Amino acid sequence: MPKPLIALDWGTTRARAFLISETGAVLQRRIADQGIQSVPAGGYPAAFETLAGDFRRAAPDAAIVLAGMVGSRNGWIEAPYVACPASPDEIAAASIRAALDDHTTATILPGLSCDEGAFDVMRGEETLIVGLGLENGIACLPGTHSKWAEIRDGRIVRFASFMTGEVYGLLRNGSILGRLAEEPSGEDASNGATRGRAGAQRAGGLLNTAFAARTEVLAGRMRGGEVGPYLSALLVGQEILGAQSLFGRREEIHLVADGALAESYGAALEAAGLTVRLTTPEDAFVAGIRRLADVLTG
Amino acid sequence: MPKPLIALDWGTTRARAFLISETGAVLQRRIADQGIQSVPAGGYPAAFETLAGDFRRAAPDAAIVLAGMVGSRNGWIEAPYVACPASPDEIAAASIRAALDDHTTATILPGLSCDEGAFDVMRGEETLIVGLGLENGIACLPGTHSKWAEIRDGRIVRFASFMTGEVYGLLRNGSILGRLAEEPSGEDASNGATRGRAGAQRAGGLLNTAFAARTEVLAGRMRGGEVGPYLSALLVGQEILGAQSLFGRREEIHLVADGALAESYGAALEAAGLTVRLTTPEDAFVAGIRRLADVLTG
Repeated sequence: MPKPLIALDWGTTRARAFLISETGAVLQRRIADQGIQSVPAGGYPAAFETLAGDFRRAAPDAAIVLAGMVGSRNGWIEAPYVACPASPDEIAAASIRAALDDHTTATILPGLSCDEGAFDVMRGEETLIVGLGLENGIACLPGTHSKWAEIRDGRIVRFASFMTGEVYGLLRNGSILGRLAEEPSGEDASNGATRGRAGAQRAGGLLNTAFAARTEVLAGRMRGGEVGPYLSALLVGQEILGAQSLFGRREEIHLVADGALAESYGAALEAAGLTVRLTTPEDAFVAGIRRLADVLTG
Repeated sequence: MPKPLIALDWGTTRARAFLISETGAVLQRRIADQGIQSVPAGGYPAAFETLAGDFRRAAPDAAIVLAGMVGSRNGWIEAPYVACPASPDEIAAASIRAALDDHTTATILPGLSCDEGAFDVMRGEETLIVGLGLENGIACLPGTHSKWAEIRDGRIVRFASFMTGEVYGLLRNGSILGRLAEEPSGEDASNGATRGRAGAQRAGGLLNTAFAARTEVLAGRMRGGEVGPYLSALLVGQEILGAQSLFGRREEIHLVADGALAESYGAALEAAGLTVRLTTPEDAFVAGIRRLADVLTG
């Protein structure tokens, strides 16, 4: 029988805590900077109390399920990776139990591993992908290290990471290109993005097309405000091309994003002729952990 | 009539000065950290005296020809870029004259610009390319911002830059990948390079394949000492693929490099099935500036 659910997406730098009803509605939420890197050894029960103690008092019979880096080697208890292909049932079955201060059980979900070409791992994203409820499809989860995943017959069959967000930060802030970059104003954002998407289609590859941001500005043919949007769109375009080379070209992409990432990836995917189905990370997480919790309490 | 030649490759951070005989032999050389960024306004005649005053006294009738960033907007006098295609005669004809303290003339060579797809520029490399003496071929000049150039009928018809060296530094030292990297020992360098070359051939693109350095190390399948060599070979492999997409696949590449770059690019080009013709940067510069000086002095 479904019970209320206290669910945490507990990452390295941040934690998102939710009190979720039997039917999957968010009753309360809290977002805190208390990621696992701020939790001292042995400090997880106390950290959980700080993040969600009031949720427990509001719903004393709630199940407690945790996802994300909390299940890593550097987290509370290590929940070993489940190898793809993995169904929601297989993910739930590999969860690990931890004890709160009063001996109540908290369930920690595992991450996934994939070994196609290169070894790859995820922790937390698997729950968002489950939350999409797909039988078949491709999911894109943009970020510092974006994830793309293929779902077939309801199972996550494979996935790949792209260090798009991190490389953007390095090029924008740490490279010779950053010295020419200015804050976008006026049409800079849309002009830069249009040029970046075109750049991703050019021959020469990323190491060549990124450098164009320098030479075009020095030649007076690109504004300093276009540099950041150009690089962002160039990298997102490269990520989409790379994902298509791995997963094939699909007509429809399930994008899990909000805010600026939803806008930039949505625009890039649509410019590539793809249909975008957008879900916010919160909606995907809540639906996914509700589904996994239902398997657990079966 | 050829005369002795005092030639400087005067870049942003370094200067290389040569006294060259009528027949192109290096009689004296000096390498100094006195790049143009260390020269104060109006300080070029004095800086030249420091770098090559003794060469002048040894060969009072020598021509004086300068190449590199000394001819940029931030240098001594700006020698505007010559647009490709450009022959050695056209490059020499666009040079600019500067006066030393005693009113002796120093000739400053221009750089090249190319406008194929994206605008691109070079300063200094054009002299090395001329020094290869090619009628037709492809030159590769590795570095922080590698240059590839196509020569047809003795003219540099187009070229492209790749920010390979800079991106290597960013990924190796500034990214999450760098945290796992260790100094290579034993077989690390060759194993990492082999895996990086294979990685460059994989689907997924650079943003995906670079990330494998992290996940493979975390999985215990790559040694920390392999991370740097893996990234280096991955990026060089991407540069070669990008250059081939721009210039077509040629059987023979004229590589202008020495030391570690000659080794890593030579191995990567040969692994790609290409024949490598190696010239050191000094040999290419000396031959190129001797040839351009002979045009100037008729």
